[in-house]
Amino acid sequence: MKIEGKEYRTIWFDEKNQTVKIIDQTKLPHQFVIKDLKTVKDAINAIKIMEVRGAPLIGATAAYGLVLSIIEKNDLSFLRKSSEELIASRPTAINLKWAVERMMKKLFGVNDKEILKMALDEAKAIIEEDVKFCKKIGLNGLKIIEDISNKKKDTINILTHCNAGWLATINWGTATSPIYHAHQKGIKVHVWVDETRPRNQGANLTSYELNEEGIQNTVITDNAGGILMQRGQVDMCIVGTDRTLSNGDVCNKIGTYLKALSAKDNNVPFYVALPSSTIDWSIKDNKQIPIEERNSEELSHVEGIDENNEIKKVRIYPQKSKSLNLAFDVTPAKLVTGLITERGVCEASEKGLKGLFK
Amino acid sequence: MKIEGKEYRTIWFDEKNQTVKIIDQTKLPHQFVIKDLKTVKDAINAIKIMEVRGAPLIGATAAYGLVLSIIEKNDLSFLRKSSEELIASRPTAINLKWAVERMMKKLFGVNDKEILKMALDEAKAIIEEDVKFCKKIGLNGLKIIEDISNKKKDTINILTHCNAGWLATINWGTATSPIYHAHQKGIKVHVWVDETRPRNQGANLTSYELNEEGIQNTVITDNAGGILMQRGQVDMCIVGTDRTLSNGDVCNKIGTYLKALSAKDNNVPFYVALPSSTIDWSIKDNKQIPIEERNSEELSHVEGIDENNEIKKVRIYPQKSKSLNLAFDVTPAKLVTGLITERGVCEASEKGLKGLFK
Repeated sequence: MKIEGKEYRTIWFDEKNQTVKIIDQTKLPHQFVIKDLKTVKDAINAIKIMEVRGAPLIGATAAYGLVLSIIEKNDLSFLRKSSEELIASRPTAINLKWAVERMMKKLFGVNDKEILKMALDEAKAIIEEDVKFCKKIGLNGLKIIEDISNKKKDTINILTHCNAGWLATINWGTATSPIYHAHQKGIKVHVWVDETRPRNQGANLTSYELNEEGIQNTVITDNAGGILMQRGQVDMCIVGTDRTLSNGDVCNKIGTYLKALSAKDNNVPFYVALPSSTIDWSIKDNKQIPIEERNSEELSHVEGIDENNEIKKVRIYPQKSKSLNLAFDVTPAKLVTGLITERGVCEASEKGLKGLFK
Repeated sequence: MKIEGKEYRTIWFDEKNQTVKIIDQTKLPHQFVIKDLKTVKDAINAIKIMEVRGAPLIGATAAYGLVLSIIEKNDLSFLRKSSEELIASRPTAINLKWAVERMMKKLFGVNDKEILKMALDEAKAIIEEDVKFCKKIGLNGLKIIEDISNKKKDTINILTHCNAGWLATINWGTATSPIYHAHQKGIKVHVWVDETRPRNQGANLTSYELNEEGIQNTVITDNAGGILMQRGQVDMCIVGTDRTLSNGDVCNKIGTYLKALSAKDNNVPFYVALPSSTIDWSIKDNKQIPIEERNSEELSHVEGIDENNEIKKVRIYPQKSKSLNLAFDVTPAKLVTGLITERGVCEASEKGLKGLFK
């Protein structure tokens, strides 16, 4: 998608320099910085400090991380160590494990001379597949928006939480893909963007990317979705997910559950958009999902632009105060109207998912 | 209650200088500043820009505002104009109208010589009554905490939203009063403090005042209450209210509704603490409650302490982004376990409220 009119993806391989290029998302929206990842350590660090984030994108970064590992040291035990460290770099999103395991399966038994090319091809395949799947998610979700649009004949108000936009994937996004497709088809859409504390990915990334694509949007606090739904100012919700269980329970950015509760209470359809790489077929009970606890400084300190147009970090909490920073919550399947996948839209249930996959 | 070990109230009359003293709450938690209100305009402005906030405290400030109006110009038409402007200074909290109408009723027909003393006495009566009522709310709410404590025999985790602490009243607070009373009785309590975007009154005021009273608390984002309740880490919720309808519907700081939904979904008791001055007996439908829309800069800009220990305001949103700042929402009575008032705890319903009042 576009930034200042120019097409970008969130990650790509620089053949000439044998490095991986990313958009450093910790700098957005205040600065647009393209960064080189030169080593697997760089890739791990980029995932950890969230220079790249979003389940599909960190999966892609992990795949390229293994490529960098091979470039650095073409050695099986180093590759294995790299794969373990990449999987451990963030706990909740399942795509990380999925991408690393897919890569390692492909590379199993491949000889030293061919392994780099094979790794690069597979990483690129993962990435092209994600782009294709996100596009299909968009086309499948578009039908839902069209249905609402046929009834409403006015601007469709869509609420989203966090960033499941193209910046969370390679292109198109998951939750935003139906929105981009609707916009391209000439349907008037307006997006309510939850700011998504503590890291404000809604304001910093979703609103930013929607602005760049010319899609009307309004940032609201995470507290505001409820009253907007009570007032009938939300026609549908679409969010992404970091891990969806086979029973349809959805683990996503903290606060998603509260919006889903409100959507249910006000009869607002609540959709979750995901590529199949985000489905966890193994875990049966959502209590087993590892919920990441991040540094509490993400809550107590905020970065912004000061009056001299410089980036400045300020402490916003009382110095004595403690804080807790849980990054995800689980929305039970009962609150989810449907799952929008690359293969179609299904009920949030084992039956629904198995109908499309397996 | 105490700040740095010294007892304060949020507002008091300075007999010598004939001014009203307030704690400037826009400076908290970074600076503790006591400010003089010298004219009714000062009082109106203090309410508007939220140097004082919280339904009971803005009622008290309005009462003192009329005192300042009489000191400035002992004239009936000026007093009437002042009363109208005070009522219009903020729309949602009913206490403002209640306090001004109570004052004006008392002052009706009083002669020029006696009116100042009469006004001052009535403002002080309003204030002393609020202190007494908040204390009684505390004792009534304490019983609920004691009941939970008798079953749990461990630290009681209480979630609160925004600041319905002593800083929102004159002393004790509404939602915090049961907590302070429990603490004084030796019951171990720990408070989950919603930061309460956009103005962060939870972090800035509630956590601040709990710290000063030595009560354990942890600041969380407004997104986090849901997962904590899912995990069984919240034993009860207590919030305040800006206006409670006779049918038990509760208008309070935006986001309260989302927490109440989550409490219901997880069988966590959800209480609302209020003095009777916050009950609106006239409005029957919560859609008629005027919901304040505040400046969107409250969302896009944040104030904090920089590395030089100076207060700094930074813009956190993309420059092109629009935002909407609704300040309150309505929690339907069906989600409220009970109302904690100065006369006792009742069901959130007309029957419940009428059983205690009228």
